[in-house]
Amino acid sequence: MKFPEVILHLPDWIERFLANSDLLYSTAEERMQLAIKLAQLNIQHRTGGPFGAGIFERQTGRLIAVGVNRVEPLNCSIAHAEMMAIAIAQRLIGSYDLSNVADTAYELVTSTEPCAMCLGAIPWSGVRSVVCGARDEDARAIGFEEGAKPSNWVKSLEDRGISVRRDVLREQAKAVLLEYREGGGLIYNARKEK
Amino acid sequence: MKFPEVILHLPDWIERFLANSDLLYSTAEERMQLAIKLAQLNIQHRTGGPFGAGIFERQTGRLIAVGVNRVEPLNCSIAHAEMMAIAIAQRLIGSYDLSNVADTAYELVTSTEPCAMCLGAIPWSGVRSVVCGARDEDARAIGFEEGAKPSNWVKSLEDRGISVRRDVLREQAKAVLLEYREGGGLIYNARKEK
Repeated sequence: MKFPEVILHLPDWIERFLANSDLLYSTAEERMQLAIKLAQLNIQHRTGGPFGAGIFERQTGRLIAVGVNRVEPLNCSIAHAEMMAIAIAQRLIGSYDLSNVADTAYELVTSTEPCAMCLGAIPWSGVRSVVCGARDEDARAIGFEEGAKPSNWVKSLEDRGISVRRDVLREQAKAVLLEYREGGGLIYNARKEK
Repeated sequence: MKFPEVILHLPDWIERFLANSDLLYSTAEERMQLAIKLAQLNIQHRTGGPFGAGIFERQTGRLIAVGVNRVEPLNCSIAHAEMMAIAIAQRLIGSYDLSNVADTAYELVTSTEPCAMCLGAIPWSGVRSVVCGARDEDARAIGFEEGAKPSNWVKSLEDRGISVRRDVLREQAKAVLLEYREGGGLIYNARKEK
């Protein structure tokens, strides 16, 4: 019995889009702007769900990796934007633990607060901080589920030394979710809503 | 800026091992036996952490996909056994949602209860049942973290129509975890233990 490889890859437009971009993002807002733009372009190119993320060096703001939701095109339910960004950053850094890199702390910036899976993945990833745009209720409002997160999920990360900042450009991030729904984008797992 | 693909692949020995195996596993115990054997072989071949999993057709017991922990060899913190099995099964079925297949329910069998990430991944995967061997406290006992799972995590799955069976061959599954620790296997993320 032979099993296939699973290849997680970003859409082609990302390379073209970032070719002309500054790769230093000093503030949380600039980093979030990129995550939101990735979510929006992912909708426009029809290459996945309305979610974008990036991994940055926390101090310098240098962009390390990006992710967009690739669930539908890759037929892979684990291919959320945050998971893509984490896996690509680890491949680039050459470690399964981004906190293994001396003197450099990494930050995950995500256009929408993480679902239960991505939340669980954050401590294993080695990022030291997380910045979120839209709230999970904004994702639920357009029909996406977020899963069974501990009610104190922010604290569960902070207890592990991972700082959390919420509501960065929330309205702008939320507008992209609404744009996706209005464009008739696929809301997968919707039938499992309670 | 160009980003690499992330390739999730199983170790080579799996194909050889399964070449001589029966691919019908009628009972939960037979399915668990396979998951535990995969965990054990993964230790012996030094191809990852001490965790194994499989996806089966629930009714027939036909094996669809397997997974073993590949975090260290792939430098990828999301490459837990359950995530590998889910992603490979979805690739084979051709859908990001295993519940999309008419008249066939899929079952995830895992040698140790899922960590927070894998728990969060289960509802998105489309499996309709989960069978667990060792308890999460058995994994914690050898130094692995399980993350911030909701205290009522079994109910959180059952509320979504996913049945959960625990403690199947628990002692045998636990023995493999102890074997790993005694063999000096890497306990990653251990320093983040509380």
